[in-house]
Amino acid sequence: MSKTVVLGHKNPDTDSITSAIVYAYLKNQVGHEAEAIRLGDVTEETAFALEQFKVEAPRLVTALEQAEQPVILVDHNEFQQSIDGIEDAHILEVVDHHRIANFETADPLYYRAEPVGCTATILLKLFKEHGVEVPQNMAGLMLSAIISDSLLFKSPTCTEQDIKAAKELEAIAGVDAQEYGLNMLKAGADVSSKTIEE
Amino acid sequence: MSKTVVLGHKNPDTDSITSAIVYAYLKNQVGHEAEAIRLGDVTEETAFALEQFKVEAPRLVTALEQAEQPVILVDHNEFQQSIDGIEDAHILEVVDHHRIANFETADPLYYRAEPVGCTATILLKLFKEHGVEVPQNMAGLMLSAIISDSLLFKSPTCTEQDIKAAKELEAIAGVDAQEYGLNMLKAGADVSSKTIEE
Ligand SMILES: [Mn+2]
Ligand SMILES: [Mn+2]
Ligand SMILES: [Mn+2]
Ligand SMILES: [Mn+2]
Repeated sequence: MSKTVVLGHKNPDTDSITSAIVYAYLKNQVGHEAEAIRLGDVTEETAFALEQFKVEAPRLVTALEQAEQPVILVDHNEFQQSIDGIEDAHILEVVDHHRIANFETADPLYYRAEPVGCTATILLKLFKEHGVEVPQNMAGLMLSAIISDSLLFKSPTCTEQDIKAAKELEAIAGVDAQEYGLNMLKAGADVSSKTIEE
Repeated sequence: MSKTVVLGHKNPDTDSITSAIVYAYLKNQVGHEAEAIRLGDVTEETAFALEQFKVEAPRLVTALEQAEQPVILVDHNEFQQSIDGIEDAHILEVVDHHRIANFETADPLYYRAEPVGCTATILLKLFKEHGVEVPQNMAGLMLSAIISDSLLFKSPTCTEQDIKAAKELEAIAGVDAQEYGLNMLKAGADVSSKTIEE
């Protein structure tokens, strides 16, 4: 059986990229060999977060090459949002915060969904449940995901749990969430600045 | 919005009946008003467990009367195994240990599935996560479910986690799992004994 891959959805946002990285890290810490992959380009916003916390982008993989490939899905569950070939994969786990639809498995699995604003908020709970310490760079990536999905805590999907998680992560990451968050969101929105400067 | 109902599958086994009772108890303890219901007759095996731990069977309800009824599913997720009218319900949560299929929701939800042998094994974790003490009768019901689903720890679906949970529950319930379990399974299997005695 080949190594488990951890992946977010197509057209990946910051939560999909960073949750794949962070959950693969956690799985490796608990002795389950896993590699984060991504299904598409890293956005400017996500690139800003990866650079800030000095973490490499996951490897780009757009289709599963073998049946029964062990996979873990984060930040999505619907097959049409997932990697090509997902129908033939062995889905070991899902960690997500969306409705469930267009999803099924042949076997029992670990499925953890919560009605919160961001996958990272659930991942922080999983670190605690496994008794694994959150390193500074992983905290920074989780904080970035919450800021991105919640538009700096302003989205109606943002819950008290997301805000509480972000406060904890802010302290570990060693950044000011408001200042860092504005710069990160600006990096994503700011296509014009380059044109003006250049 | 009417009170949340907690329900197991059609043709309920011991796990479906007791997990509905136990999870409704836990929800009420954390301030979410909930009532266990059942979709069918209580088996002899389940009746033995309920009598042993002095707990009433849930109310029989076979169809949801109103759309958007808030429901929590335990021990199943597939709609064809669930209550009539489930397609129009508001599914708040699922706690289960089966594959996922023929299931979808309109909204984000709390979904907790783990690849273990019994729903009760997951429920014991939820008591701990919520910091709620397990009373003697609820421990007895959860132990009964694990014994039933695992055929007294002999089924290939029984995991180390189920055995560990059963040991903990045995101590709280104040029964010997082997002795009590054999009697419970016998009560379920033993249709002949009555005919002989009567
Ligand atoms: Mn996303
Ligand atoms: Mn997300
Ligand atoms: Mn069952
Ligand atoms: Mn069961």
